[in-house]
Amino acid sequence: MTQYRIFASPDDAEMAFYQAVAERDLDGLMAVWSDEEDLLCVHPTGELIHGHNAIRESWRMIFGSSHFRAEATQLMHWHSTVVAIHHNTEVLFVGDDNTPHGPLHVTHIFMRGAHGWRLVCRQAQASSEIPGLQERAKHTLH
Amino acid sequence: MTQYRIFASPDDAEMAFYQAVAERDLDGLMAVWSDEEDLLCVHPTGELIHGHNAIRESWRMIFGSSHFRAEATQLMHWHSTVVAIHHNTEVLFVGDDNTPHGPLHVTHIFMRGAHGWRLVCRQAQASSEIPGLQERAKHTLH
Repeated sequence: MTQYRIFASPDDAEMAFYQAVAERDLDGLMAVWSDEEDLLCVHPTGELIHGHNAIRESWRMIFGSSHFRAEATQLMHWHSTVVAIHHNTEVLFVGDDNTPHGPLHVTHIFMRGAHGWRLVCRQAQASSEIPGLQERAKHTLH
Repeated sequence: MTQYRIFASPDDAEMAFYQAVAERDLDGLMAVWSDEEDLLCVHPTGELIHGHNAIRESWRMIFGSSHFRAEATQLMHWHSTVVAIHHNTEVLFVGDDNTPHGPLHVTHIFMRGAHGWRLVCRQAQASSEIPGLQERAKHTLH
């Protein structure tokens, strides 16, 4: 029934996205993507994936080969009544390991349609920052 | 007087952006960016630049060290009355050389404010495609 979840806000949709990633829940992940709009997903590898089916297949392969969660910090957002853009910094944690990977610069674009807010574009790009530097700095401050 | 140009559409603003890049016109380029909104620019290096002054300084350095033009093809766009997003593929040509570089996956976000449409975010990421492959394919078809 995940297909018919209604997200009342872009934040709700984004939270469901990150939860689905952490749980390797492909149906849950694809329920966040719009089925009314043309879709784009650019992976940190520089690979551009176009359309619902190809994006599903791409994440099926990612979930099949790795298990990670992404901790996202919103750096900036732009909202209108039908379009919302979030720019996040994502730090990745693989398996049960607490070593931070990334960070990634991520732009998420959400559109409000008949079924609430849904993702139409994700662009994720590796940062030039040294992996884990922010995380280590945070710990150093304690 | 470039500072006070009004762009009637996201396309007008984007055209001025690419023209300014080709002409290394820093004032022209910065006139495309909003002065009402918080700004973000992610370069293909993975460096994230935040705010009008830092973005200006970053492009000043780019223009000082290289001369290139970008040929953009729009792959997808999402428009509302106040926000517009363009996703482009950019092929770069350095100096007078016709060798294509890139391509880059580029997301541009425009907002409509008191002074027309202005850029608030640019994320440019190197593609995993083999540089110039599209361009060569295009020529091969002739």
